Amino acid sequence: MRHTYRCPLRWADMDAFGHVNNVVFLRYLEEARIDFMFRLAPGEGDASFKGGSVVARHEIDYKRQLVHRHEPVQIDLWVTRIGAASATIAYEVKDDDAVYVRASTVVVPFDFASGRPRRLSEGERAFLGVYFEEPEAAAA
Amino acid sequence: MRHTYRCPLRWADMDAFGHVNNVVFLRYLEEARIDFMFRLAPGEGDASFKGGSVVARHEIDYKRQLVHRHEPVQIDLWVTRIGAASATIAYEVKDDDAVYVRASTVVVPFDFASGRPRRLSEGERAFLGVYFEEPEAAAA
Amino acid sequence: MRHTYRCPLRWADMDAFGHVNNVVFLRYLEEARIDFMFRLAPGEGDASFKGGSVVARHEIDYKRQLVHRHEPVQIDLWVTRIGAASATIAYEVKDDDAVYVRASTVVVPFDFASGRPRRLSEGERAFLGVYFEEPEAAAA
Amino acid sequence: MRHTYRCPLRWADMDAFGHVNNVVFLRYLEEARIDFMFRLAPGEGDASFKGGSVVARHEIDYKRQLVHRHEPVQIDLWVTRIGAASATIAYEVKDDDAVYVRASTVVVPFDFASGRPRRLSEGERAFLGVYFEEPEAAAA
Repeated sequence: MRHTYRCPLRWADMDAFGHVNNVVFLRYLEEARIDFMFRLAPGEGDASFKGGSVVARHEIDYKRQLVHRHEPVQIDLWVTRIGAASATIAYEVKDDDAVYVRASTVVVPFDFASGRPRRLSEGERAFLGVYFEEPEAAAA
Repeated sequence: MRHTYRCPLRWADMDAFGHVNNVVFLRYLEEARIDFMFRLAPGEGDASFKGGSVVARHEIDYKRQLVHRHEPVQIDLWVTRIGAASATIAYEVKDDDAVYVRASTVVVPFDFASGRPRRLSEGERAFLGVYFEEPEAAAA
Repeated sequence: MRHTYRCPLRWADMDAFGHVNNVVFLRYLEEARIDFMFRLAPGEGDASFKGGSVVARHEIDYKRQLVHRHEPVQIDLWVTRIGAASATIAYEVKDDDAVYVRASTVVVPFDFASGRPRRLSEGERAFLGVYFEEPEAAAA
Repeated sequence: MRHTYRCPLRWADMDAFGHVNNVVFLRYLEEARIDFMFRLAPGEGDASFKGGSVVARHEIDYKRQLVHRHEPVQIDLWVTRIGAASATIAYEVKDDDAVYVRASTVVVPFDFASGRPRRLSEGERAFLGVYFEEPEAAAA
């Protein structure tokens, strides 16, 4: 199953070249991830994604320029790997007829109190499992 | 040869977790790249990186948290691939005794007038060649 | 009449103090203004707000902290002055039971081709007039 | 006495109009203020500006456009009011031959532990006094 987040743009997301700046797409991915991990995922408090998680890695491919408009852009998000202490999230930023960005992020749950990464809980693994898809052979 | 850019931090680069937000590191890489491609590279006008270039891909690995301080952070930047119409830039964001981020970016010279990518010029290839290093087997 | 814009927050709008950073509220005001001047206002092309406008002045009073949540915050926007070559917009950033920010902005239509401010057109004055309210004696 | 901060620009501070976005100037003021209040001001720990302070009000006048360049822009900063529980800071963002922005900020020391503003300490008042100037009759 894929989670769909409709991400609002801001006018200032554009840079002097008049299109959405490449760095801002990572901000859009963060928003989609926060909607997924902080709002949709179960659990509150320190032992949850919301209590702390860090990014270990991003890969991002830019396919097409995006210019500011008043309508949100669609971000599809799913899970391609569930490890002991990390997971990989894949995304597609798109409209019905265009893909702007394909990307993936390795996320690590983190305990800010101890300053250390922590293992995924059973509940987190179950939640992530609902959105799991085998990565394609030629995934971005 | 590696180009070294000393990147100033801003206090607001930190997020609610009290460290430099992962997306902001991409902004730091942009600043290093702009110093390299817009200031250091020869040439002005439309037929130069400054006249237009887009990012086709980023890979970024986060190694260590960075907290705001008044001193800049060092970014080493070099070239690991020179293609016909694109080049790959590698970076290390670091202090003397710590590496925060390793990353690479595929950059494509772009003609915004025609809305199309263009080939690297001889001058651009010569410039990039000065900073070329074979990628390591186990490069990030 | 007041224009109401429901402004989405982003998680990274928070700073290391764990609340929406004071500078980001100006970004929210920009989003409300762009919705008002670029989407709602009539006219396309160079001779419209969208073709170019600059900010001459902001005043902003912070009344209450705002913390990230998934629901948008409401921004009410109206016009308190219509001059020959500028107008003043007032705003309230709020929820039903709380005001976070009161602010005002002097906006100047600007012709980027000539690099000069320009006068408001009749159509622009008529549009702004619909949202005009006498400023209160004790306005923020 | 005025405090001078040399503020580095970032390329992405420019918006689609090709100049530094009006909101970003507030970020520059924040950087100047942080240099003044977090680095230059005496004291560490919770009972210091660094331990917490919030902005109660900004006024900002835009005098001239600024375009990205590799050299920092100069920000002069001084104090125009020292109250019991707040102070007003004035700024000029400029080069030798041009003023881009004049602005002022009301800053309130804040105790994030109790969630309440606090009074200025004697040490803070003495520090601010060194940079005090009577506001001009026609101050921005």
